[in-house]
Amino acid sequence: MSTSMTAPSPAAPTTPPRVLSAALSEHVGARIRIAGWLHRRRLLKSVAFAIVRDRSGLAQVVVSEEVARARLEELNEETVVEVTGTVVANPAAPGGVELVEPVITVLGEAEAPPFDLYRPSLRATLPTLLDRAPVSLRHPRRKAAFELASAATMGFRETVAAMDFTEIFTPKIVASATESGANVFAIDYFGRPGYLAQSPQFYKQTMVGVFERVFEVGPVFRAEPHDTVRHLAEYTSLDVEFGFIESYRDVAEVLREVVAGMVSAVAERAAAAVALLEPVVPQVPSRFPELHFAEALELISRETGEDLSGVNDLSPAHERWVGEWARREHGSDFAVVVGYPMSKRPFYTAEDPGRPGYSDSFDLLFRGTEMVTGGRRLHRYADYLAAIAAQGGSPEPYAGYLEAFKHGMPPHGGFAIGLERFVAQLTGVANIREVTLFPRDLHRIAP
Amino acid sequence: MSTSMTAPSPAAPTTPPRVLSAALSEHVGARIRIAGWLHRRRLLKSVAFAIVRDRSGLAQVVVSEEVARARLEELNEETVVEVTGTVVANPAAPGGVELVEPVITVLGEAEAPPFDLYRPSLRATLPTLLDRAPVSLRHPRRKAAFELASAATMGFRETVAAMDFTEIFTPKIVASATESGANVFAIDYFGRPGYLAQSPQFYKQTMVGVFERVFEVGPVFRAEPHDTVRHLAEYTSLDVEFGFIESYRDVAEVLREVVAGMVSAVAERAAAAVALLEPVVPQVPSRFPELHFAEALELISRETGEDLSGVNDLSPAHERWVGEWARREHGSDFAVVVGYPMSKRPFYTAEDPGRPGYSDSFDLLFRGTEMVTGGRRLHRYADYLAAIAAQGGSPEPYAGYLEAFKHGMPPHGGFAIGLERFVAQLTGVANIREVTLFPRDLHRIAP
Repeated sequence: MSTSMTAPSPAAPTTPPRVLSAALSEHVGARIRIAGWLHRRRLLKSVAFAIVRDRSGLAQVVVSEEVARARLEELNEETVVEVTGTVVANPAAPGGVELVEPVITVLGEAEAPPFDLYRPSLRATLPTLLDRAPVSLRHPRRKAAFELASAATMGFRETVAAMDFTEIFTPKIVASATESGANVFAIDYFGRPGYLAQSPQFYKQTMVGVFERVFEVGPVFRAEPHDTVRHLAEYTSLDVEFGFIESYRDVAEVLREVVAGMVSAVAERAAAAVALLEPVVPQVPSRFPELHFAEALELISRETGEDLSGVNDLSPAHERWVGEWARREHGSDFAVVVGYPMSKRPFYTAEDPGRPGYSDSFDLLFRGTEMVTGGRRLHRYADYLAAIAAQGGSPEPYAGYLEAFKHGMPPHGGFAIGLERFVAQLTGVANIREVTLFPRDLHRIAP
Repeated sequence: MSTSMTAPSPAAPTTPPRVLSAALSEHVGARIRIAGWLHRRRLLKSVAFAIVRDRSGLAQVVVSEEVARARLEELNEETVVEVTGTVVANPAAPGGVELVEPVITVLGEAEAPPFDLYRPSLRATLPTLLDRAPVSLRHPRRKAAFELASAATMGFRETVAAMDFTEIFTPKIVASATESGANVFAIDYFGRPGYLAQSPQFYKQTMVGVFERVFEVGPVFRAEPHDTVRHLAEYTSLDVEFGFIESYRDVAEVLREVVAGMVSAVAERAAAAVALLEPVVPQVPSRFPELHFAEALELISRETGEDLSGVNDLSPAHERWVGEWARREHGSDFAVVVGYPMSKRPFYTAEDPGRPGYSDSFDLLFRGTEMVTGGRRLHRYADYLAAIAAQGGSPEPYAGYLEAFKHGMPPHGGFAIGLERFVAQLTGVANIREVTLFPRDLHRIAP
């Protein structure tokens, strides 16, 4: 207990301090220590190389001495090692430096990995990569997607915190299905029925009554019965809700700030991941180009000749059309479609006062695919009772939610961003599972 | 669609911009607009006052004109209003300013609240406050605890992000109970059995193999069969895990940095809540005072005369004793107890190599109550197989977890902070439910 934190450990009294591989070039000439995973061994005739991977990148270790080489030959890739060596400049080495005269110590043994992590891309099917996630995620390209996600989430929170939003944590176990009875997971709650929250929608609205402006980052659960490349049974939702708005426009404007914050956080905080994956980082315009739902249908119909009368939603092909329109007319990766018909929106959606039948809400499309849904909500108790009755429902299961509206709520609105979907669209992967650490779907609950 | 964001709304063409109540004193002499909840009406003989609450605090509105007064008398507390008025200095008013010549517009009607939100503290039992959470949380003192929590969480994340930790989102639906079969919620996962994660423990360890340093803020689920003032069935866990450590000391040092970051974020970001609740914000020492478990028992036994031979855990009374020891001997609100017996720690816990039978792990006590558990974990595959076998278990349910250790893991460790417990101890509330937005327990699943 009297040993101070900075004292060397008794087991290795002369161990030099650990240096990250990305910082090696600052230590040319010095005897230092690196630590990480044996990413690759290259056993040439005259010399051997050990490539060590740590959280900052790769370092090359030159092994020329015979005993050390024999030892290296015995180690499997992914063995965790500590290497003490001297840093020398070598323009041919990655990063312009390498480690010579190494002493290699094993910190964690490894069996041979199921696939080569050192190849530019992994040679295995997606199901295999997901089954072996603890290993496959170590591949620099797989890992990089999550560094983007982490940076984007930080950018999200910093942006809303700067706008005076309060972070909330709302319950994921709820007494009744949130928005509809469908697609909800049932749980055994101390012998009584419970459900997993499909979204924090009701709670975040209620909390506008307390904090005015709230946000939440948390899991949401959808018992999606379909197996598609875009749907997950559990994903991360970035939720925002705030009061004292006039229309969906105020919501779309906050969303624009948030998306800009996420995109710049990716560029600034995840520069290495951006350099590796080369996603096309979008320009966020000073205002999102907008199309009204009815206008979008009219333009599509005029261009394609499709009869779209009576259509009350956009198909994926229509969304792609809008994406192309935004690119062509406004040079933008983003487009907002406003005024989806009320019949396609959940009961808490407010109507456009100037255009009955159409909602005061929107979808944000990113590169022709829906990424965010947002809008203004009802805020009067009587309007909720009417909307629930119009759906043939009873107010009883909504009692806790309606309590907020009974006791004074301002006009308010908000949106939810699916984090995995944002990263999938940013990186252009074919399947959202590629950018989800441990995806959950109709068929998968492990690892 | 051509209307710009900054254009005035058609309904109120001459509305001045909204000012928050806390900023009113910057607008003396100006005609401005405030918006918020009618917190209190004071109807005196000669004059009436409307106190309006917004997210920044309270504003006083002077109503002397007869028609306006009659209108105010009709409104219930908690009605959402917009008030346009002229700001005048008045040393007797809260904040030194008030609004005169008001025009009051109702934005959201309200029924009379079930309790008076304007009183210094709420006059209702805790069950009633929880049943009516959407209203009771509006009370400035209740609300303030969550502003502390939001600030502390931001401080947590900023501190770990600055130390190069990556944020992860691990699944909450899992295929097998995490640490034990007890206290786990079962779910119907597409017709197959699933469970809610009791902690992200296995996943965060696995992710050390990918990112080296990870953190997660998310819900954890415990089917706690006991109804106590300290336990919840769902709470927010602030999790940290990182590699390339030597002992629990490295973990305790990161924890110290994190707690310091949380405490200063509370002081800086939640100053108004701190001013209202007056929690005793602790000093975080440059190093936490430490006692070994065995030494703690010896000191307690010597002082109290209790026979503690064979005891393998600390009782709440023992924890309080250690808390008093830390205060008395080190002037600290914090104390670390290290080396809890292996028999009381989960199977993944590493042993102290210098003291067999005792773990390389610790608890952090804050004011005499356990707040954090942390330590070094096993990192070798063979050690996991042995530890699981020693418990009479089979490695099969742990296959996805063990995959990481089979393929090379560094010595690592981490900790988990219960957010609600931290705030409860900081604010000194009697029951953790007071600082949980929508608590879940043996009896409560709504609202």
